[in-house]
Amino acid sequence: MAERIFGHIPNVYEGDNFENRLTLSHSKVHRPTQAGISGSQKEGADSIVLSGGYEDDQDLGDVIIYTGHGGRDPDSKKQVANQILSDKNLALAINCQNGLPVRVIRGASHKSQFSPEFGYRYDGLYKVVKYWKKKGKSGFNVWLFRLEKIDTDKSLGFEVKEDAPEYAKTTRTTVIQQRINRDYSLTIRVKEIYNFHCQVCNTKLFTNAGFYAEAAHIKPLGEPHHGPDTLDNLLCLCPNHHVMFDFGGFMIDDDFTLVGLDGKLTVKPEHQINKDFLRYHREHFTI
Amino acid sequence: MAERIFGHIPNVYEGDNFENRLTLSHSKVHRPTQAGISGSQKEGADSIVLSGGYEDDQDLGDVIIYTGHGGRDPDSKKQVANQILSDKNLALAINCQNGLPVRVIRGASHKSQFSPEFGYRYDGLYKVVKYWKKKGKSGFNVWLFRLEKIDTDKSLGFEVKEDAPEYAKTTRTTVIQQRINRDYSLTIRVKEIYNFHCQVCNTKLFTNAGFYAEAAHIKPLGEPHHGPDTLDNLLCLCPNHHVMFDFGGFMIDDDFTLVGLDGKLTVKPEHQINKDFLRYHREHFTI
Repeated sequence: MAERIFGHIPNVYEGDNFENRLTLSHSKVHRPTQAGISGSQKEGADSIVLSGGYEDDQDLGDVIIYTGHGGRDPDSKKQVANQILSDKNLALAINCQNGLPVRVIRGASHKSQFSPEFGYRYDGLYKVVKYWKKKGKSGFNVWLFRLEKIDTDKSLGFEVKEDAPEYAKTTRTTVIQQRINRDYSLTIRVKEIYNFHCQVCNTKLFTNAGFYAEAAHIKPLGEPHHGPDTLDNLLCLCPNHHVMFDFGGFMIDDDFTLVGLDGKLTVKPEHQINKDFLRYHREHFTI
Repeated sequence: MAERIFGHIPNVYEGDNFENRLTLSHSKVHRPTQAGISGSQKEGADSIVLSGGYEDDQDLGDVIIYTGHGGRDPDSKKQVANQILSDKNLALAINCQNGLPVRVIRGASHKSQFSPEFGYRYDGLYKVVKYWKKKGKSGFNVWLFRLEKIDTDKSLGFEVKEDAPEYAKTTRTTVIQQRINRDYSLTIRVKEIYNFHCQVCNTKLFTNAGFYAEAAHIKPLGEPHHGPDTLDNLLCLCPNHHVMFDFGGFMIDDDFTLVGLDGKLTVKPEHQINKDFLRYHREHFTI
């Protein structure tokens, strides 16, 4: 199976139209030809198609309340059972917990003033800002996801560094897509290496969407630190030690001894940490 | 001493001019007549004046790199010692950790294309998005704070609920200010009650700016939950248990027994928790 692409698809622009699900699928904007959600419960969801619609959906344009998958009778399309936070629904929850964007496509059959007249239209990237369960209009539990449109220009303003190499500035679409892909695969990678255990305290948190850890940059991304988005600049931390690390509550020596906390950072052989970044952190965040 | 006001001052608008530090002080936009930072290391900073300027300052308009206080020779104004993250500098760090806005005033003597020609101008609210230490141009350590302008309209779009009572809609300025004041005092209050200990695990985190805990809403604020911003809807949690709670990793029964985790929520007598909110959480966030 082809790699899942998060973010814009190269050479496809917001507002582009597609005649049917097959041409939409070929464009790679939304690969499945039937399913409304493209994604997996491990990687997250890369795209959704709004068409027809669940009775609890709401489309306000830049904000969409999207009803999860499942529990509907295939013939009557009525909700006849509780939805479960698994499979494609879990994929959207993973987006929420990891800040992953999802491509939104509206179909002509979607009941909304924002729907295209014919076929399908690519409407850009949204983030999943929250999700929750409620008793739907049918009386059965549904999972709802609040999607908010990502202001592409704004994200870029923040992310594209002034000293970025020229090749990274070619087109806005390319830049965003590269950033998101890269960021995400590394985030996943460092959590996989430690199997969601914090490198400081070994804690492994769980949520309704599975295990939870955070990928923390040692030398921060963005102005003015310009830390790189690379594995040797990432740690797998629990939220407590992420906050403490970012706000200088402890430091890490070159031999991984913790300063300000007892013990030593757990470091696996396949995870090379760049000690320049540890030094940068010690110099810039501790009193 | 008068209560410290975070956010806009009623009847003072962005772009308003003040002849000198005395009229500025009387307006309450920036109370001290000499100091550049108005604030305390317990409460945070409510306003800063840019005037003259440290050699490491940068003013890009909507983004300001602001140098902390201290270590300068009073006569030559040269940096002659390391700055410490205490007092007014610590106040700005507290803003960063708690999401508090700071009023920014530019003076004519501030070396920037954004400075007013005469006197002082109120330039609106900024948030402190990060802070760090570096060896300044002088060779001594300085603490730097990155301030970013708060888009007032945007904040409002998110915060003013459609079913808000009419009195809360009177003017935009009033609404924002009320929101920020209220939010902040309760956040502080719940952390004080538990002295920064997590109500679930009793952990008390520390950072370079002191102890750290999070005020977590039981029934979330904002769409679609519309939880109230009241003490009976707040918990004092460590970031780990805040993430787990928000993502349904555990629930709290009416008798405060934890479900999904061992033990019981610590609840002090002066902290009345509304059990309707606990039930709302159980019904909407757990699988």
